[in-house]
Amino acid sequence: MRQAGRYLPEYREIRATLDFVQLCRSPELAAEVTIQPLRRFDLDAAIIFSDILIPCTAMGQDLTFDKGHGPRLTPPIRGASDLARLRHPDADKELGYVGEAIAKTKTMLRPDQTMIGFAGAPFTVASYMIEGSGSKEFTEVKRLLFTQPDVFKNLLNLLGDVTIDYLRMQIRAGADVVMLFDTWAGQLTVGDYVTQVLPVTSRVISAIRNSGTPVIYFPGQGSDRLYELKDCPANMFSIDWRTRLSRATKILADIGSTAGVQGNLDPQSLIGTEADIRARTRNILEEARGARSHIFNVGHGLLPHTPPEALSWVVDEVRRFNK
Amino acid sequence: MRQAGRYLPEYREIRATLDFVQLCRSPELAAEVTIQPLRRFDLDAAIIFSDILIPCTAMGQDLTFDKGHGPRLTPPIRGASDLARLRHPDADKELGYVGEAIAKTKTMLRPDQTMIGFAGAPFTVASYMIEGSGSKEFTEVKRLLFTQPDVFKNLLNLLGDVTIDYLRMQIRAGADVVMLFDTWAGQLTVGDYVTQVLPVTSRVISAIRNSGTPVIYFPGQGSDRLYELKDCPANMFSIDWRTRLSRATKILADIGSTAGVQGNLDPQSLIGTEADIRARTRNILEEARGARSHIFNVGHGLLPHTPPEALSWVVDEVRRFNK
Repeated sequence: MRQAGRYLPEYREIRATLDFVQLCRSPELAAEVTIQPLRRFDLDAAIIFSDILIPCTAMGQDLTFDKGHGPRLTPPIRGASDLARLRHPDADKELGYVGEAIAKTKTMLRPDQTMIGFAGAPFTVASYMIEGSGSKEFTEVKRLLFTQPDVFKNLLNLLGDVTIDYLRMQIRAGADVVMLFDTWAGQLTVGDYVTQVLPVTSRVISAIRNSGTPVIYFPGQGSDRLYELKDCPANMFSIDWRTRLSRATKILADIGSTAGVQGNLDPQSLIGTEADIRARTRNILEEARGARSHIFNVGHGLLPHTPPEALSWVVDEVRRFNK
Repeated sequence: MRQAGRYLPEYREIRATLDFVQLCRSPELAAEVTIQPLRRFDLDAAIIFSDILIPCTAMGQDLTFDKGHGPRLTPPIRGASDLARLRHPDADKELGYVGEAIAKTKTMLRPDQTMIGFAGAPFTVASYMIEGSGSKEFTEVKRLLFTQPDVFKNLLNLLGDVTIDYLRMQIRAGADVVMLFDTWAGQLTVGDYVTQVLPVTSRVISAIRNSGTPVIYFPGQGSDRLYELKDCPANMFSIDWRTRLSRATKILADIGSTAGVQGNLDPQSLIGTEADIRARTRNILEEARGARSHIFNVGHGLLPHTPPEALSWVVDEVRRFNK
């Protein structure tokens, strides 16, 4: 879960020399910042340094990160003619730098360490493509959904196709597992999520699982969508900090899902005291006891002001628990 | 649920003559914009035109609304010395204009129409007071919670006391029911919500209910917190659009709560077609059949671009269903 960097001085040193998108496009440096946390902490996996909006750049949008304003994608997709200008990129040729970064990272991992690739889920990527930026109320996303449903659907289906190719490229490059981030899934009613978003999302997950690679799906913003995931073919569901892991596990058992859970320490709690951080870590491990399987992780991305030593307390506590 | 206004031309006409905070402080005009939707639509209730941050102005913060940036509260509360400067206002003397607006509105209501007063819940108001504005990641809120928990607790307790006085003043002025908006409740883990937020919130609700006035509590951002509300004394829980009303009803039955539900049409869906809006309205009425009681409402505030005629379709559909 976005473990690479922003909170590490050695990351900020590299970032000072080039901008975020350039760093994503530089396989050597992207591999370097991917591996940095594993030099400091006894972690089981590395997640490739990149961004969920990188594929949009190969589809025909410009991506920039304005200081303090998050991502900007131009031009925004607001109708059929905008959609018609988007391309389905050749993942190897146009996004191959992500694969190269994965391959380079993999040479630095121990055989028992897992290489995680990732992509944004179609709805969450579409949200940025439509708004042209992050959003609070997702007004343009919903305007497209409610007034031009065919355009919305075609955009999601295009993103589904692109995402399958993109993840397969990452797997060929060495990703052992892939994550699919649906950070904004909770902006929709459950009904709209089930009818408009879940089918294309499950299609992506199926295509990857059918090729033998496990998939972790992150349906963000609370547990309301978990009830609907009986037939979603993900191996694991990543749970944000809003939901108790014991609750997520119970919901999955109730619907007959065999998926495990990943999560879900509140990343913001890492600015607290050592005793509190250790207690929260143990609590999550206890809450996950009933799960089919559990990958310990934070419940969302780490923030830049996270003290690195807080991560060492978390890792230590997880290792103790597993002994 | 913030039904007054922003989408009505007659509201925008008044707002063109004075700023938002001035309008909240002008009882005649606040009453006028409160009643405007009831002149157009066959509604059962009016909710007073105001803002959850109005009490902060009487506690010692300056409130402005920057175009496109939402509310600004200065100075932000970041530590014990900031907290020490806050005052517990005399609600009648310093916030009496809200009561006056309620009293004036009430003279314009039919006897069978309900007057709703409201306040922000302590955590949600504290979030704005600490950040000094709206926020995406609530970093300063969590920094205070995790590094200065006593200051955080004392701020919430002060807000609890202020909110009780503020709502009682509204009730004396004529509010028949009050709503307590906890829009950002879902930013916390369920554990932190239960230990840090729910006790003071339930204290406010108890104090109002004990005086005989019903309370509707809105724990925003999904159903994860509903599981914890068995002992929360609210008469109704307002449910945002993220949760199926049938799910909310089932959770409340499972925990043994006797509360009803309010909600929960996605306000953004009101830009869709008449057929879709009518179908969504009927669907919510069907989903609420198992509830102890149900108040039909939108699941969040109406947006400025909502076409007024969409509201007439919703009201018509609710009236048909009830026949």
